[in-house]
Amino acid sequence: MPFPFHPAGDDPVPAAVRGFARAHADLVALHEDPIHLLARHRAPGRRVGLVSGGGSGHEPLHAGFLGRGMLDAVAPGPVFTSPHNKAVLYASRAAAGPDGVIHIVKNYTGDRINFGIAAERLRMEGVDVARVLVDDDLATDGLDTATGRRGTAATVVVEKILGAAADSGAGLAELATLGADVAAASRSLAVASRAQTSMRTGEPAFALDGRLDYGVGIHGERARRSVDRPPTEELVDRMLDEVVAGLPDGPDQVVMVVNGMGGTALLELYVLAELAAAGLEARGLERVGLLVGTFVPALDMAGFSLTLTRMRPEWTGLWAAPAQTAAFPRTETS
Amino acid sequence: MPFPFHPAGDDPVPAAVRGFARAHADLVALHEDPIHLLARHRAPGRRVGLVSGGGSGHEPLHAGFLGRGMLDAVAPGPVFTSPHNKAVLYASRAAAGPDGVIHIVKNYTGDRINFGIAAERLRMEGVDVARVLVDDDLATDGLDTATGRRGTAATVVVEKILGAAADSGAGLAELATLGADVAAASRSLAVASRAQTSMRTGEPAFALDGRLDYGVGIHGERARRSVDRPPTEELVDRMLDEVVAGLPDGPDQVVMVVNGMGGTALLELYVLAELAAAGLEARGLERVGLLVGTFVPALDMAGFSLTLTRMRPEWTGLWAAPAQTAAFPRTETS
Repeated sequence: MPFPFHPAGDDPVPAAVRGFARAHADLVALHEDPIHLLARHRAPGRRVGLVSGGGSGHEPLHAGFLGRGMLDAVAPGPVFTSPHNKAVLYASRAAAGPDGVIHIVKNYTGDRINFGIAAERLRMEGVDVARVLVDDDLATDGLDTATGRRGTAATVVVEKILGAAADSGAGLAELATLGADVAAASRSLAVASRAQTSMRTGEPAFALDGRLDYGVGIHGERARRSVDRPPTEELVDRMLDEVVAGLPDGPDQVVMVVNGMGGTALLELYVLAELAAAGLEARGLERVGLLVGTFVPALDMAGFSLTLTRMRPEWTGLWAAPAQTAAFPRTETS
Repeated sequence: MPFPFHPAGDDPVPAAVRGFARAHADLVALHEDPIHLLARHRAPGRRVGLVSGGGSGHEPLHAGFLGRGMLDAVAPGPVFTSPHNKAVLYASRAAAGPDGVIHIVKNYTGDRINFGIAAERLRMEGVDVARVLVDDDLATDGLDTATGRRGTAATVVVEKILGAAADSGAGLAELATLGADVAAASRSLAVASRAQTSMRTGEPAFALDGRLDYGVGIHGERARRSVDRPPTEELVDRMLDEVVAGLPDGPDQVVMVVNGMGGTALLELYVLAELAAAGLEARGLERVGLLVGTFVPALDMAGFSLTLTRMRPEWTGLWAAPAQTAAFPRTETS
């Protein structure tokens, strides 16, 4: 098990979740067999438990968003692999409120299947379950109508807004509708300048030869095209054009997430955020929230994504509500 | 200015600090010409302003630690280059409390000189100033007696403990002594598996050919030796042996920082934290605090550092006190 990363067959997730739970013991409790993590605190008025999860390698997603104002339970799978439905089931049982459970699921086949099996089992046990599917990744728009768009960094926006609504006492149907609306109002696009390190070989998982993968996925799914590296202003401009064009119609207020893919310096992410903020202004969009940092990476891939959520007026307060988690930062509250 | 990073002559710092100030407008205010950032809020009982700064490329250090419970003002320099003394002067003037200002300075010649010039000027203006020098990097221990050890990730520990003490109303002399004591009780060691991207060439700043630089600096200063990659458990064990041996005698309680150098996945940092936590237990050391994340990187270098601070009983409450900053996480409070 050499640093960095770990050869085939050596699963880093159990040690990593223990390390996470140790570092944030005041916020979360770890349960093993199957692995799931629970928030220690929840708002007294919360009637619905919020449960998420998915493959590991995207930290701080999801466990970093456990806590008051966001998630109640998460089921982390192996690296880039869906959690077993049993882990989702245990997490959901522990998190269920009097009105049931919401599953926040990134749109990947394995996640859909495993959360689906857990949901059926929960319903048999008398627990109401609704699903919010996050499918923001424009790079996969129209690629395969059976699968739909992948879920990426908009997950954080959905988890934040739903968490605040759950704290305010919203019921299951209301949260399911809200989550679907927020997901539908969100689009993302990601680029990579260097692939993530392969855990099998310790080398980059694919070669880019100085080009950018334009539309890369958070598991290293290759983009449809690679491009020569344009000036950064041009790159941000082009990405914004596509993301804005992908948004549904609605009010001119947006939340923006400038997300690092894992191996990109925060210094550079802040430069990108400044360029993108100027780009929003030039397009007549008012920014009511801005997250800059590494929230939904692909292990240590170098690159970034831009996410926009077109905000309805009633969502702004939910976005700005406090969250007591390991990873959600203090945000600008317009 | 292609992504990633920026060719010679194109300074990313002004755009990055604007992006940072935009993302955290509720916490900080940006002043340009010369660039410095001020916390918007401070504890009512604070009598001394805490000021830090240094070269950029180590984000979230220092601006990410502006806010109640930590710093009042920071002066970010160009990448890997000390801020001009004028920026330190302006930051200090704005931050000074009735009892003056503490300068928290990482031990590099340029920082010492520029903070020193600013301090002289402040004293001429009637502002009391004391300096806390952070010099935790074991890799430079005994290398050059004129310069001393470099300052690295222990800076976060010093800033956190001093911030809480300043909030409680401690005076200048008391804070200066406390800061010197915390710095003296702290040691760090860093390894790199891949150099940071050179801003001139867009390529890694040095080649490692599959080896680890053992004792690398946060500006890419090469270690005295490179080593074949050992199993991770062995690597952590060896680093802990050296860091523990470097600590002064005292109580068996420590704070540990597992710090990413910029390009290392959080998943892996949590694995390293878990191994290191076990290593502390095996050495009879009680962990009273644990920070895991990217706090003091060298741009996008792949690697990590381990920092230990041997804690006195009266420091534990200061460590655990709340901090309202962009980057200091919620911590385990034993």
